Amino acid sequence: MTEFTSIDELREICRTLPAGDERAAEAAHARQCVLTKPPGSLGRLEELAAWLACWQGRAIPRLERVEVLVFAGNHGVVAQGVSPYPPEVTVQMVANFAAGGAAINQLAAAAGATLRVIPLGLETPTRDLTEAAALTEGEFLAAVRSGFAAVAPGTDLLALGEMGIGNTTAAAALAAALFGGGGERWAGRGTGLDDAGLLRKRAAIDRALARHAGALDDPLLAAMTLGGRELAAILGAALAARLHRTPVLLDGFVSTAAAAPLARIAPTALDHARVAHRSAEAAHAALAAELGQVPILDLGMRLGEASGAAVAIPVLRAAVACHTGMATFAEAGVHGRA
Amino acid sequence: MTEFTSIDELREICRTLPAGDERAAEAAHARQCVLTKPPGSLGRLEELAAWLACWQGRAIPRLERVEVLVFAGNHGVVAQGVSPYPPEVTVQMVANFAAGGAAINQLAAAAGATLRVIPLGLETPTRDLTEAAALTEGEFLAAVRSGFAAVAPGTDLLALGEMGIGNTTAAAALAAALFGGGGERWAGRGTGLDDAGLLRKRAAIDRALARHAGALDDPLLAAMTLGGRELAAILGAALAARLHRTPVLLDGFVSTAAAAPLARIAPTALDHARVAHRSAEAAHAALAAELGQVPILDLGMRLGEASGAAVAIPVLRAAVACHTGMATFAEAGVHGRA
Repeated sequence: MTEFTSIDELREICRTLPAGDERAAEAAHARQCVLTKPPGSLGRLEELAAWLACWQGRAIPRLERVEVLVFAGNHGVVAQGVSPYPPEVTVQMVANFAAGGAAINQLAAAAGATLRVIPLGLETPTRDLTEAAALTEGEFLAAVRSGFAAVAPGTDLLALGEMGIGNTTAAAALAAALFGGGGERWAGRGTGLDDAGLLRKRAAIDRALARHAGALDDPLLAAMTLGGRELAAILGAALAARLHRTPVLLDGFVSTAAAAPLARIAPTALDHARVAHRSAEAAHAALAAELGQVPILDLGMRLGEASGAAVAIPVLRAAVACHTGMATFAEAGVHGRA
Repeated sequence: MTEFTSIDELREICRTLPAGDERAAEAAHARQCVLTKPPGSLGRLEELAAWLACWQGRAIPRLERVEVLVFAGNHGVVAQGVSPYPPEVTVQMVANFAAGGAAINQLAAAAGATLRVIPLGLETPTRDLTEAAALTEGEFLAAVRSGFAAVAPGTDLLALGEMGIGNTTAAAALAAALFGGGGERWAGRGTGLDDAGLLRKRAAIDRALARHAGALDDPLLAAMTLGGRELAAILGAALAARLHRTPVLLDGFVSTAAAAPLARIAPTALDHARVAHRSAEAAHAALAAELGQVPILDLGMRLGEASGAAVAIPVLRAAVACHTGMATFAEAGVHGRA
């Protein structure tokens, strides 16, 4: 297994990532062109089939082993009044996941995916990022490693999500550090902040950015300083998936922000990932655009928990079903264009 | 069974449609508010669960019997050079549906839906609408009846689609008659027209609108004069579904245009229907907007065959899975807002 004992070593791994299998992608595209439909008429389904082929290294991709990973963490910044829910909800929701009562339990089952929930030090919240670095290097690397180790080789598709009261504040601060702008650009209402709460959240983000200004140029240091354990784990899982060449669905605002440092280290580092759903969290559209991504779905969801990613899994299944099962013009005896 | 022996009788039926079950919809909404998630955070999934509840008349809707109906027809207007494919492709694709080789075969199976394909007089194309009314009243009513009779009572969800070389021209002409504008507003590239073909298509639509100007004020007469058998059948199926209070997914441009006369007769006549997917066919967005609909998906598809509707079925399954299976805050022992 790939090891890293410092942020410097981790950064080196991020700079030498394997590419996808362009021959498999081209073979998939060529097949799409002879299936019984006008070329291009399945739109995004054709692009997604070729993308899965590229990363699975198979002209005919498959979706047998599909896994949803949800990482959970707690956040010291809740002391700034940035969430309408108390921090105990994180551990309560982890219990709800275990009991099968949350949205992601239903959505993963409906999508034919297995679900694993990985709580990360819920009893030890990150430090309040307005006052100190959220994580030490050791804590950050341990969380990255948790995510990295959670990815099983041979997974056909991985969906990455999170749960953590206060984590849209961490994600917004991280997005600001990576892509510029401050609290006004990146803070949204999260689980449902009122106007006063939104102002507190923006101000907290701006204070954090000012306090840590000297430590934010490096994307991994920014993730350590402003992020959280579940965000670090998503980064680690996205990285491991890339090394396994496993395609990844990123969920909403927090998941996308969590993986974004990889793309700031190497512009192609998230080519194996797709943003699954455009969150109703205000800044997610801007974040996806910064990454050059067009989310697959836009259903007004803003729950996290990998919920948006899980709803996108059947779209990929539809893409694979057409790619695999359709007849060609020659096989079906259907005329091509006049 | 409801009978109609003239367009006048059919119009009367369209004017006295049953409403949905608002109490079931309210009960569904109330349940969404106590499930373990911030209120509204499942976005469109919450709205769709309540919509299904409204039309199924059950606070907890179900999706056990889901059926995809694809109607096929041929069009005399192909003589005007409005499609890059020869008209024989319609019957060839119907054979491909029967053999299981088309996109909709894979998509219906992936969505857990049954598929029925109903060819309508393929050996007798409609008249060329630039020269005569496409259908006689008898032909039109027979096709409406075919669609009407195809809807089985007790269906939980119905997806409506079509196949017919040349039918985007008919659909565009019909949309123009119903909502104003001419060929420039409503003609798109269909299965892949080049620039010259697009100009021919616009001109054909404008000639048809001019020739039949006196007969287009009534929505059903417009459907008879400009439409086609598969469009009339979709209208009939959408109407039967309303009488059974069965929720309907409309597919792309042709399916939406086919059902649109109902909404021009009574503004609420398509409240039991949702436009499933925003087609890449240029005018579909405008048509959906005229109907006050926001398509559920936007995947750049433009195939017809109910393909976009079929991809939306798993989104409804996701909505129902959350609505049915999630724990409430009280059940899960999760704190509400602080």
